[in-house]
Amino acid sequence: MKVSKFGGTSVASADQIKKVAAIVQSDRSRKFIVVSAPGKRFDSDKKVTDLLIDLASAALNHEEVETKLSLVLDRYKEIALGLDLEQTICDVIEEDLRLRISSDSSDVEYFVDNIKASGEDNNAKLISTYFTSIGLRAQYVSPKTAGLIVNDFPERALALPEAYENLSELKNSNEIVVFPGFFGFTKGGLLRTFDRGGSDISGSILAASVHADLYENFTDVDSVFCANPRVVNDPVEIEEITYREMRELSYAGFSVFHDEALMPVYKARIPVCIKNTNNPSAPGTKIVAERKGKHRPITGISADSGFSILYVSKYLMNREIGFGRKLLQILEEELISYEHTPSGLDDISVILRSHQLTAEKERRIIKRVKEELHAEEAHFRHEFSMIVVVGEGMNNNTGLAARAATAISRTGSNIEMINQGSSEVSLSFGVHRSNENKILQELYNEFFAPVSVG
Amino acid sequence: MKVSKFGGTSVASADQIKKVAAIVQSDRSRKFIVVSAPGKRFDSDKKVTDLLIDLASAALNHEEVETKLSLVLDRYKEIALGLDLEQTICDVIEEDLRLRISSDSSDVEYFVDNIKASGEDNNAKLISTYFTSIGLRAQYVSPKTAGLIVNDFPERALALPEAYENLSELKNSNEIVVFPGFFGFTKGGLLRTFDRGGSDISGSILAASVHADLYENFTDVDSVFCANPRVVNDPVEIEEITYREMRELSYAGFSVFHDEALMPVYKARIPVCIKNTNNPSAPGTKIVAERKGKHRPITGISADSGFSILYVSKYLMNREIGFGRKLLQILEEELISYEHTPSGLDDISVILRSHQLTAEKERRIIKRVKEELHAEEAHFRHEFSMIVVVGEGMNNNTGLAARAATAISRTGSNIEMINQGSSEVSLSFGVHRSNENKILQELYNEFFAPVSVG
Repeated sequence: MKVSKFGGTSVASADQIKKVAAIVQSDRSRKFIVVSAPGKRFDSDKKVTDLLIDLASAALNHEEVETKLSLVLDRYKEIALGLDLEQTICDVIEEDLRLRISSDSSDVEYFVDNIKASGEDNNAKLISTYFTSIGLRAQYVSPKTAGLIVNDFPERALALPEAYENLSELKNSNEIVVFPGFFGFTKGGLLRTFDRGGSDISGSILAASVHADLYENFTDVDSVFCANPRVVNDPVEIEEITYREMRELSYAGFSVFHDEALMPVYKARIPVCIKNTNNPSAPGTKIVAERKGKHRPITGISADSGFSILYVSKYLMNREIGFGRKLLQILEEELISYEHTPSGLDDISVILRSHQLTAEKERRIIKRVKEELHAEEAHFRHEFSMIVVVGEGMNNNTGLAARAATAISRTGSNIEMINQGSSEVSLSFGVHRSNENKILQELYNEFFAPVSVG
Repeated sequence: MKVSKFGGTSVASADQIKKVAAIVQSDRSRKFIVVSAPGKRFDSDKKVTDLLIDLASAALNHEEVETKLSLVLDRYKEIALGLDLEQTICDVIEEDLRLRISSDSSDVEYFVDNIKASGEDNNAKLISTYFTSIGLRAQYVSPKTAGLIVNDFPERALALPEAYENLSELKNSNEIVVFPGFFGFTKGGLLRTFDRGGSDISGSILAASVHADLYENFTDVDSVFCANPRVVNDPVEIEEITYREMRELSYAGFSVFHDEALMPVYKARIPVCIKNTNNPSAPGTKIVAERKGKHRPITGISADSGFSILYVSKYLMNREIGFGRKLLQILEEELISYEHTPSGLDDISVILRSHQLTAEKERRIIKRVKEELHAEEAHFRHEFSMIVVVGEGMNNNTGLAARAATAISRTGSNIEMINQGSSEVSLSFGVHRSNENKILQELYNEFFAPVSVG
């Protein structure tokens, strides 16, 4: 039995939803369908979620809401019309939305979340109605009645253990379950949304709960590429990838699959298949616990910009037990998370995402590092990119780091930082942002191009 | 004006001390002479310090001490005889030693330190007497009267700021100052010794105190080699090296100069020259703040064994602010210092010196990491070596990491860890111990051999 999640573009229009229905009909084991809100139909289109954010904002500011409400309702109406559905479902959706808009807005986070989540919720109702209309035995299931219990973190909720227990009951459903992604409810009954890519998270939780044989994630690409196709021309498609590899890749610029979404299926050891709604016969990319074919040591290369480096030096630093810990504590107190901490004997660098910094925070950190840790030097540098080379086959592959470093040196770029941990699933390089794309291309040539054109 | 320190082999016999006198006579700016205890005269010889440790141990255990005392006194007598000195100096030394042996032994650490430090102290008295006998205006100066005040750490004392102030008074001495290395006194007047290589530390403190133009460190080698001559045949001699480079090299197996000893002269920006007592006309190796000739990007390569790796993994580790800090805190509470912490997204490794571990400590650490940090995996691996490639010229030298990694891959060895910080003075590789020597040789070939014989 499969849990199949369909992303925004897969449910953006009547035509797309017809493809979804065909996919569901073609395989009777597709018993759980998780849906996103209608996404973009064309490049300049607006996602329903964004229209809902506009609507919520207007309502909060006591502005005129009818125009904004119509924009949302028109999307559903157009879909309903294209699917030959009766007017009833659109009335249900309108009533639901008006209820949310007129609800108490004193808790702003809740108010916005509640309106945002309607995108998925109403789309699930609509799709369930459509499934029934074409003879599929389907029912919309609300995360509230199904018991998707989450903790109380607005916009970044995490499912609680009892959510899995509650949702496992759905296994006994005789009908196809159509389930809205992106949100759950606290024990107190308050709606809370997941982090970005939240529908992936819902699908993953559901798959783990019902012990699915496979979690299918339908998007608009045939598969995951081994490198960003916007930088590298026609990159190799990944057939099979391990959870660990996927996770390391999702770290830096591989936006196909939200990393947190992997957690529930990873823990339950349920394989994932990323497939294309527009080309469902393509095999897609399979995410598994262990992969057999390891003939290629590298599975993918990702690159991401927006990193800063905090450099700290102090003579005899390595004699001081606790220096590194104290440095990290200062960052922790500023609520800053870090990526890597390469170190020399008397210096340590902390690589972190720049968006966490402000001029004020930087000043405060430098001051504390100098005063409390008596560092001789401490400064921030910005505009760095991280390039991550990922592959289970890297482990014990002599010379791989040499090949990667040599490829980078061919571009004439300097390597600011190298980090290779003992897991050896990944090897990361810190480089100046301006060199990011040419390095990605050269590493691709080295590890994936049929003939290296160094 | 120069401070010249002579190591154990340089003052091991009458012949050696004559060489020291000639060196002092040849340059009138050599006003401060810091001496070690008599060292080995030949490979199987015993250092006086070791004889003194035996003596102290016998005294503590209320065993017969006369034989052990004679072994020490005989060394001084032989030297005095060879230098045509009168019996008086030997009587002074004997009286001093008997006083130390018969002193209160309730504080064992102090008792042993006090006897150990007599090696340097009495040798300074003897050498000063010899200098005077050949017409040099010299005086023995005690660290106690000169005010070398240290904190109260037995066997690892650190000089306090007032020590520098007190010792600066010696600048006004009209005579050559002969100063014993290795020890100082607490404010309460208790003798405390420095860490290993403690005479180097005394010399460095004295050089900083009197603002010497140069701190000369006389040993038994012509210069510092760029790689261990016991592994690499006839390695290149280093003419000039920066404090930072020397420090990074002293980290791993470069035992020529004790790293802590560099601190005082580094802070005072006093250049250091490592010279050979047996070949004083050789230029030696100069340690400076900045070096001019950077035509070679690499200055030296060191290698050291005895490292362990603590590997910890947890899914979504990088989402947890504070994970790394908490891990380091656990190690800190076990009084363990670490070298590097390479990290992936969901794993972190801590490289540390194995001698700090016991089976019991390992068990405790693993237990805490699993229970308190909820890590999915945590284990230790042992028998690793660190290879450190050091050079100020590394900074912005494109392709250097690639050359080093390629050289290592030529040996067929796997690289367990790479660490390159942002200072770029050093690049370190973690490798299995069994591959250490062949990697050192291959890196030497790559960076130093006239023609690489890959």
